[in-house]
Amino acid sequence: MAPVGAGLWRTLRAQQVYGANTDVGKTIVSTVLCNAIQKQKQRAAFLKPVSTGALDDADDRHLKRYGAGTLTKCLYQFDEPVSPHIAAKQKNISDDDLLASIHKTLSDWARSDVDFALVETAGGVHSPGPNGNSQADLYRPLRLPIVLVADSRLGGISSSVSAYESLLLRGYDIQSVLLFRDEYYQNHEYLRDFFRNKSIPLVSLPAPPAKPLQLDADSQLRDEEAMSSYYQKVSQESEILRLLEEMSVKNTERIERLDEMADRAHDLIWYPFTQHQGMSAKDITVIDSAHDDYFQTFKSSSSTKPDSELRPTFDGSASWWTQGLGHGNPDLSLSAAYAAGRYGHVMFAGAVHEPALSLADRLLKTLDNPRFTKVFYTDNGSTGMEVAVKMGLRVACDRYGWDASQEKINILGLKGSYHGDTIGVMDCSEPSTYNKKVEWYRGRGHWFDFPLVKMVNGTWKIEVPEELRADLGPDVEVDSLNSVFDLDQRLQSDAAQRYKEYIRRTIEDLVQKQGMKFGALILEPVILGAGGMLFCDPLFQRCLTDVVRDNPELFSAQNNTPKSAPSWSGLPVIFDEVFTGLYRLGRPTSASFLDVHPDIAVNAKLLTGGLIPLCTTVASQEIFDTFSSPEKSDALLHGHSYTAHAVGCTVAVDSLKTMSDMDVNGSWDGFRADWNATSAPAKESSADVWSVWSQGLLKDLSCTDAVESVFAIGTVLSISLRDAQGGGYTSTAAKGLQQKLAVGGDQFNVHSRVLGNVLYLMSSVTSKPDSLKEMEKLLRTSLQ
Amino acid sequence: MAPVGAGLWRTLRAQQVYGANTDVGKTIVSTVLCNAIQKQKQRAAFLKPVSTGALDDADDRHLKRYGAGTLTKCLYQFDEPVSPHIAAKQKNISDDDLLASIHKTLSDWARSDVDFALVETAGGVHSPGPNGNSQADLYRPLRLPIVLVADSRLGGISSSVSAYESLLLRGYDIQSVLLFRDEYYQNHEYLRDFFRNKSIPLVSLPAPPAKPLQLDADSQLRDEEAMSSYYQKVSQESEILRLLEEMSVKNTERIERLDEMADRAHDLIWYPFTQHQGMSAKDITVIDSAHDDYFQTFKSSSSTKPDSELRPTFDGSASWWTQGLGHGNPDLSLSAAYAAGRYGHVMFAGAVHEPALSLADRLLKTLDNPRFTKVFYTDNGSTGMEVAVKMGLRVACDRYGWDASQEKINILGLKGSYHGDTIGVMDCSEPSTYNKKVEWYRGRGHWFDFPLVKMVNGTWKIEVPEELRADLGPDVEVDSLNSVFDLDQRLQSDAAQRYKEYIRRTIEDLVQKQGMKFGALILEPVILGAGGMLFCDPLFQRCLTDVVRDNPELFSAQNNTPKSAPSWSGLPVIFDEVFTGLYRLGRPTSASFLDVHPDIAVNAKLLTGGLIPLCTTVASQEIFDTFSSPEKSDALLHGHSYTAHAVGCTVAVDSLKTMSDMDVNGSWDGFRADWNATSAPAKESSADVWSVWSQGLLKDLSCTDAVESVFAIGTVLSISLRDAQGGGYTSTAAKGLQQKLAVGGDQFNVHSRVLGNVLYLMSSVTSKPDSLKEMEKLLRTSLQ
Repeated sequence: MAPVGAGLWRTLRAQQVYGANTDVGKTIVSTVLCNAIQKQKQRAAFLKPVSTGALDDADDRHLKRYGAGTLTKCLYQFDEPVSPHIAAKQKNISDDDLLASIHKTLSDWARSDVDFALVETAGGVHSPGPNGNSQADLYRPLRLPIVLVADSRLGGISSSVSAYESLLLRGYDIQSVLLFRDEYYQNHEYLRDFFRNKSIPLVSLPAPPAKPLQLDADSQLRDEEAMSSYYQKVSQESEILRLLEEMSVKNTERIERLDEMADRAHDLIWYPFTQHQGMSAKDITVIDSAHDDYFQTFKSSSSTKPDSELRPTFDGSASWWTQGLGHGNPDLSLSAAYAAGRYGHVMFAGAVHEPALSLADRLLKTLDNPRFTKVFYTDNGSTGMEVAVKMGLRVACDRYGWDASQEKINILGLKGSYHGDTIGVMDCSEPSTYNKKVEWYRGRGHWFDFPLVKMVNGTWKIEVPEELRADLGPDVEVDSLNSVFDLDQRLQSDAAQRYKEYIRRTIEDLVQKQGMKFGALILEPVILGAGGMLFCDPLFQRCLTDVVRDNPELFSAQNNTPKSAPSWSGLPVIFDEVFTGLYRLGRPTSASFLDVHPDIAVNAKLLTGGLIPLCTTVASQEIFDTFSSPEKSDALLHGHSYTAHAVGCTVAVDSLKTMSDMDVNGSWDGFRADWNATSAPAKESSADVWSVWSQGLLKDLSCTDAVESVFAIGTVLSISLRDAQGGGYTSTAAKGLQQKLAVGGDQFNVHSRVLGNVLYLMSSVTSKPDSLKEMEKLLRTSLQ
Repeated sequence: MAPVGAGLWRTLRAQQVYGANTDVGKTIVSTVLCNAIQKQKQRAAFLKPVSTGALDDADDRHLKRYGAGTLTKCLYQFDEPVSPHIAAKQKNISDDDLLASIHKTLSDWARSDVDFALVETAGGVHSPGPNGNSQADLYRPLRLPIVLVADSRLGGISSSVSAYESLLLRGYDIQSVLLFRDEYYQNHEYLRDFFRNKSIPLVSLPAPPAKPLQLDADSQLRDEEAMSSYYQKVSQESEILRLLEEMSVKNTERIERLDEMADRAHDLIWYPFTQHQGMSAKDITVIDSAHDDYFQTFKSSSSTKPDSELRPTFDGSASWWTQGLGHGNPDLSLSAAYAAGRYGHVMFAGAVHEPALSLADRLLKTLDNPRFTKVFYTDNGSTGMEVAVKMGLRVACDRYGWDASQEKINILGLKGSYHGDTIGVMDCSEPSTYNKKVEWYRGRGHWFDFPLVKMVNGTWKIEVPEELRADLGPDVEVDSLNSVFDLDQRLQSDAAQRYKEYIRRTIEDLVQKQGMKFGALILEPVILGAGGMLFCDPLFQRCLTDVVRDNPELFSAQNNTPKSAPSWSGLPVIFDEVFTGLYRLGRPTSASFLDVHPDIAVNAKLLTGGLIPLCTTVASQEIFDTFSSPEKSDALLHGHSYTAHAVGCTVAVDSLKTMSDMDVNGSWDGFRADWNATSAPAKESSADVWSVWSQGLLKDLSCTDAVESVFAIGTVLSISLRDAQGGGYTSTAAKGLQQKLAVGGDQFNVHSRVLGNVLYLMSSVTSKPDSLKEMEKLLRTSLQ
């Protein structure tokens, strides 16, 4: 099912009417507004998506009778006066269908002569829709501006404010509040002040005529006359007319703002990782909101054409690899708000709070590495890696007796590595486009080239770089991705022996002949992301750590590895799992693919499910102990103001729990089945390799002319396009595909990022199979 | 007025009863619970802080009648059946008094034989208290666990869920939900599932007997009998007894958890800036929650003594200088939640969203520096400074034609500077305790020593370091802090000439004789925070920037400063306002104290009002343009995953607006009056120097034996203690005062941080004069 877009039309002012509670007079308010609109010689339309007998004192039939010619429509009508989730039992109305119908109705109206449309909900904001989901959640993808009908009865201040807050924390814009005047309770006075502080206009209406006690024809008639004259009178009140005017102005202003945002951003913003020369305002995507896998982007149509100005755009970079649990996730919003309300931020040096402690606990369980005992908090992957490097260098210098202020201590790593943009961790990567013009960059290390895993023409292949074939052997074909990760088997092979021998010899040469000193081995396990989505042969990474750990004498003659296990040996092994960790590749850790327990690991991005910055650097007891001394200056004197901020830690605890529950509950079993992976294994095995992207897609894409190779693992799909110029970061080969996806299909388009000749796509861990199928369809079309 | 602590007793299970709406049966539920408690041979107590006639169907009198011997109390009784804020008009009950009375009542009960206490609110969660503030806000400092009475009527699902959300986003723990069974609407079924997902038990009760329609004695009697037998029956239901048991268990578990948290943290956490050797679990403060200026800390009393286990602890470090608008600020929580609900995080490269754009706009207006045109976002002060350094070095190398990959480019700065813990910006500071053992640290620069501003024995003084007296002249006394900042006047003085001459000569020597190359001038304007709260003579910083800008030939013979103003001259001037900016020192910028427009400025900490990490690096158009080229690799290739995250930007927009409104609305005029400062000036003048700390306090402290000197500006108070060993980061002179404050007085204690022999205190910008007065009182006592 294609996604539904948010609703915003130039010619149609569409609003959704929510009630602070049942029976607050939503329909009467709607009727007042529609009357006023019609009397202004404008066209009003009223849509009741789901109507049940008694949830409201009236419905679209009321509008038909009193609406002064208002166009009315009801999508689903139930006669039982109960909540829709009870009335609709066994009726099988999907939420997606309901949303699509509303969007279509409004779009049709926008194309006709309708000026204003009101979409009325049933009951209160959280009253369940037909499938039992809260309406506030159900209707969220449309994100229409809200008319909130407040409650004028005793207790109505509270229910009105709470309803407002529930809407707000789902990212709705409440544009106006209406309620009946009740001079005894004076709710309208209190609420007027309350909403004035939020810059939201409140209009109070005279109370409607009392309902007749008898239902005889006479009473009915009198009631009808009273209602008619009520509408006649109220719909001419100047406050109402002013409100309508304001609604029009806000709709126009909102579109004007969206219209100018790209220009303003072009003026004011210095963009990350962006060469601004040649970039114009039209290259900037204006994001109005986001929900689940989709941004709602402004289409920037200059005309007054009647399509919705907003369009669903698949977030194909998972918002720079952070997105896990869907945009606008109400559970995470509430978690964040709870922590903000309970703590704000409380300083962490010498103190502890529940979220930081719970997260440390849960994270250690998630990483499931017996070496890890200590958690250090920072704000992002770059700072977390700075901490990891400080830890690694310190313990190596300590054990090997090096004076780092006098000697250059290096990093051992892989070519194409990337650990962040602060200068310290830039120095951990080899010279490249990213760093070569940074004035203080001084790469310090040796970076191995390595064999790549890819699917070419439908076949999995381990491709050895030309220069290394003499040492590592030729390319090999492999029957499946599972086999690539069958390290128990592969470690027995000749290839493993060749890998190890080559690595050992190289290190020996660097240390003994070139006199280099190494302080840490740093790896991004399995995939080197920013370096170009390089899928490293896991056997190579495994052999590298094995050689480093099994041959400590390589790094210093003075080897005094403590006998007590677990201890680091050779070099402290740092895994940068900022990108690859926490289910990005389908497992809690990517270290598990190598069956290696690093001494230090860094996690960020998915840690908070894709909401806010937070990073953890986790280390072994022995590494921690090395910083222990009577001297304060020997401590790890690192910290950031918001270290272990409560909001981030709370959201992270919830995110980890949600992802782990999904894993255990078999949420990904459909994907696993497609990949012949095992289901929710107690302990990861090589057979648990799977992706949200189908094997079929991979085979087909890899056989396409324009494609050099592909791979998929976990939520990541990588497509290398053929490039006569040979690829690399400056390649433009993937731009064509990127542009086709940006244009997209009828229903949605795609935001994607390219790295040279590689275009990758990345989903959330909560992406629905339907949504991915649509994406796969578009991808196939775009590559035809 | 002393702050009230949160309520948590070992022997007393105290809960607050909130209703999803008026008339949902709070008092009946309370009575059921009290009956059940009493029947378990435990002692129940019921407190109605504020009672109005009809807000509930009953009140403490109902409890008296049906409560089976429950102890009952009502603090304020109004007969009118309206909301308390109307009933209590002109009654003058302060919220603080109300809270103190509740706390005292509960404490008294805890000391007596009461086992359970229920504190019943009036109406719904947001029904206004006597002063018109929402009860959910009003009672927040106590943060009692919540019994939520849900609504079983039509529409009750919605009002119950909204009420729950309103409580949650204020940081309350909802421990149980009760409601009446209504088999027609089945709200209890829906809500049971809903709350089970939140791990909150829900108990449904049989509906109470219908209220009698007549009020004659007979009906009354029958009603009483029916109620009695209802309570008799319901209070024995096994679900109720299980719930009571659960409440007891939760209370015990909560205290046990608080009891173990320090130990667990000691096991799991690697603390920032902390030497763990010698640190024991008891040195770790356990923070249960926080509100306004106070943490609620666990007292860790091992006994079963009946005092509340939680104590207000003044957040004297403003949580590492971040805190601005109070802990647990509900407006910021809602802002954060709104942004999370509307966007989550949406990627920023090549895209724009409203919060990022609005913040850029507002920030530029706040900084009010005509040079600034571009905003670059990062996550914290350290990364923001890395960006600033990359900007600065690039433009200097570009203009002067230096190849930074071959030459060492240095920073010009002040001794005691600090710009964060990532290695790149560590290199911007001179060797010190902070960095000397960081393996890759290589300080690159020259750092001037400088004259300090301080109050000694009641007199303001500019103290010149011994070694500089020959060049800069002797110490001078100054009549007021305003005079220190009267730079128009002071720039005409001999001192200014001496400062400038000394600076010019020094730079000349460094460049021409020692061959050093400089790429940027980096200053923390006015106060060097982490370096030890060093209050630099603003004249010196002003002269330093003037000399650098007026003498570009000092840095390179090849001077090709563009003629078009504004352009940077000499060196790009970078102001690190991470600590000093955004009202920390009482003004939007601290650059304004020097009347200097830097070319680059970095802001963080207070940017989000003290809630979550966010940082901005703002630069001039010319600096931006230097990165413009046809080459992607010439761009500023820096970015973090959560760059310009929507939650942070939204909260920052609100924070800046709130602080600016406070400034304009004269919220600080009381403080200004004490300091003879001007009120909310259109343009900052030297006369607008003020502090939340009183001049009287400063004079008195500075005359105390133990004190060497003091100063205060804005929210910062700094106290240098006499140290025979001469001070510095490793001094322990301030420990004694810190310990006294940690012990505190009867009502509260103080968390503070020391930097060597300096103890500083820092408030929020919203700290109330009352709260500060209490703090001053404690400070005077502690220093006696």
